[in-house]
Amino acid sequence: VTPEGAFGPAMASWTAALRRSAMEDMLDASALPDIIPLALGLPAPEMFPAAALGESIASRLRTDARALQYGPPASELRSFVAALMRRRGVACRPEQVFLTAGAQQGMSLLARLLIDPGDTAMMEEHGYTGFQQALAAAGARMATVPSRLDTGIDLDALERAFARGPRPKLLYAMADGHNPLGISMPLGARRRLAALARACRVPIIEDDAYGMLSYDDEPLPALRSFDEDWVFYLGSFSKTLAPALRTGWIVAPEAFMSPLGSLKESSDINTATLGQRVVASFVASGRFDDHLAGLRAEYARRRDAMLIAVARAFPAGTRWTQPRAGFFTWVELPGAVDTGRLFHAALEQEKVAFLPGPAFAAEGATPARSALRLSFSYCRPDAIADGVGRIGRTLEAARAAGAVETRDA
Amino acid sequence: VTPEGAFGPAMASWTAALRRSAMEDMLDASALPDIIPLALGLPAPEMFPAAALGESIASRLRTDARALQYGPPASELRSFVAALMRRRGVACRPEQVFLTAGAQQGMSLLARLLIDPGDTAMMEEHGYTGFQQALAAAGARMATVPSRLDTGIDLDALERAFARGPRPKLLYAMADGHNPLGISMPLGARRRLAALARACRVPIIEDDAYGMLSYDDEPLPALRSFDEDWVFYLGSFSKTLAPALRTGWIVAPEAFMSPLGSLKESSDINTATLGQRVVASFVASGRFDDHLAGLRAEYARRRDAMLIAVARAFPAGTRWTQPRAGFFTWVELPGAVDTGRLFHAALEQEKVAFLPGPAFAAEGATPARSALRLSFSYCRPDAIADGVGRIGRTLEAARAAGAVETRDA
Repeated sequence: VTPEGAFGPAMASWTAALRRSAMEDMLDASALPDIIPLALGLPAPEMFPAAALGESIASRLRTDARALQYGPPASELRSFVAALMRRRGVACRPEQVFLTAGAQQGMSLLARLLIDPGDTAMMEEHGYTGFQQALAAAGARMATVPSRLDTGIDLDALERAFARGPRPKLLYAMADGHNPLGISMPLGARRRLAALARACRVPIIEDDAYGMLSYDDEPLPALRSFDEDWVFYLGSFSKTLAPALRTGWIVAPEAFMSPLGSLKESSDINTATLGQRVVASFVASGRFDDHLAGLRAEYARRRDAMLIAVARAFPAGTRWTQPRAGFFTWVELPGAVDTGRLFHAALEQEKVAFLPGPAFAAEGATPARSALRLSFSYCRPDAIADGVGRIGRTLEAARAAGAVETRDA
Repeated sequence: VTPEGAFGPAMASWTAALRRSAMEDMLDASALPDIIPLALGLPAPEMFPAAALGESIASRLRTDARALQYGPPASELRSFVAALMRRRGVACRPEQVFLTAGAQQGMSLLARLLIDPGDTAMMEEHGYTGFQQALAAAGARMATVPSRLDTGIDLDALERAFARGPRPKLLYAMADGHNPLGISMPLGARRRLAALARACRVPIIEDDAYGMLSYDDEPLPALRSFDEDWVFYLGSFSKTLAPALRTGWIVAPEAFMSPLGSLKESSDINTATLGQRVVASFVASGRFDDHLAGLRAEYARRRDAMLIAVARAFPAGTRWTQPRAGFFTWVELPGAVDTGRLFHAALEQEKVAFLPGPAFAAEGATPARSALRLSFSYCRPDAIADGVGRIGRTLEAARAAGAVETRDA
């Protein structure tokens, strides 16, 4: 693999698997100004506790320049995370908490620790593409399992796949605020999935980026609460505080802490970061609980605005999920609509962006041609209502013109 | 590979190569209070512009909460880095600058882009162990080439190794403030090394973590100034601003930017970090130049204090390097002294820490038993003089007792 037209160094052959995704192109297109952005899973910037974070760090740096030095990852933060995990139904000790530069780094480190090149990993047919990227970089092949819009990952299909074999080296799962499906798994399904992992000896990587952002009753316990050996938990402050802090964590058996440390050290030096210090200072100020309550209330308002707008904007026969947590709802349009073409029409004609279902198809899975993911996290309720209405109008116009039917329908 | 005593998930077989180093144990031992720390390459914390950094970020966050959002890496910082590179003799465009979470991440990303598992990388016999860690995690085997204390990497030996073949997939080099040897390569050697890389088609990873910290005349141009195709440059603000900001960069041909972006995205999401924003704000305030001048003056004082102390403390026949840049000097004791045993004796009897030469031996290389690395960056001049004196006393006492001769001497 040699960069085009270059006489310079060749890249390693595995890098042929590194591809710019169609999603990245769509994200670029939808980042233009004057577009109503229902595409990205961005947290609401007006909810960032920006001034408080700024004051915390300024006062910390006035009194303690050592906060800028190399040093072990903030131990007070590991203790806080262990306490926070109780709200997810998880009993763990600070010694089982490993701090990362966000959940994506946790995913990448675990993938590399669990996967030898050529091994197989498993995910749902529609899922977070960052997981695929992390696994591809670790040299994994991908197998898929279907999802159900009521209970999430299809446990009957999973059980059959495990029985048939060969079993994957790991399984990726999101029990709360599924990206892109907007599902939270029922309690019985969580229990059954955790038991299956143990019985079949397939470790689960539980991505709980949205688990703290639940909007109705108290959230159900995380998968990790049902099995401490076979479930690796990934958490993050990117959605509850701010992405640029790059602070997340892994909860894993203590035997994994030292290899995680060595691997992170080789990747970016395993040291306390300014982001960790800022999070620790903010948490120490006692403001995290109120802040989280404010986020839940605001995102619940936005979710409600979106669900009402979706019910109004789309034709009879449309199905969509009712998210209890997270940033997304998943809409399946009736008939055979090419949501990739709808995406371009909506962007050009109505200046609104979403992501078409096929952008989330795992490698080898059948793309969800007639589906789309809508994010309610970033826009205020009136912009959400406006934006969803525009997508509905685009669909109506395109249908009238026969312009968005899928080619193979 | 199953974690000891666990019935849980097994780690991938490649992780057998992940080992806690003897260095880590020594670092733990030397981090005790009341120890004079001449072991670690830590920047001087009292030189951190902590209050100014804190004020920059607080004022930025008061006015622009979006500094906390997901977004592309700070473009103003890439422009500043391109300008900064001119001081290293390098003409490059912002489009050739890739921001990383410190130089270690740059090393890890480049290793993974250039290495397929089983490929060979090359480094000097005594070198930065973080490079070995990054390469081991990429699945590389290590080959070595000797160093000379006058000109750095032994170019005659390198030329012979390249001629003999097989050639490595990459070569690691530090032209300024070599860690651990404290050498800066002469101009002619730089030119010859860059020409050799091109002629033999072996890409160089130039680690220039210390290139901005030169103490005498103007620094010599970086290796990258002699070849823009075959030299990948790694820079960092960890030593010139602060480690916890986790901000560094790669200068690479433009064809590598997109693969670097995809690989970083899979590793930790390629987004602007708070650290990048803080560096950008500080730089925009116009204070970087004065700050750098202050660092150079202070580290030059510390270097001078150390060289005087070394000349006084050690016996006739001792050789040591005269660093023009960086944080370290390398001391070779006469006769056959086991500096590993000297390390423990100095720590216990005189409460002073350094690192023994063997801690830097590349895999397969002959350890430098009678050598030690001293760091002059962290302590004030009086503590440096005191600490070096104590090591000298420990050596004298141990020699008198016959306690530090090497076993095989």
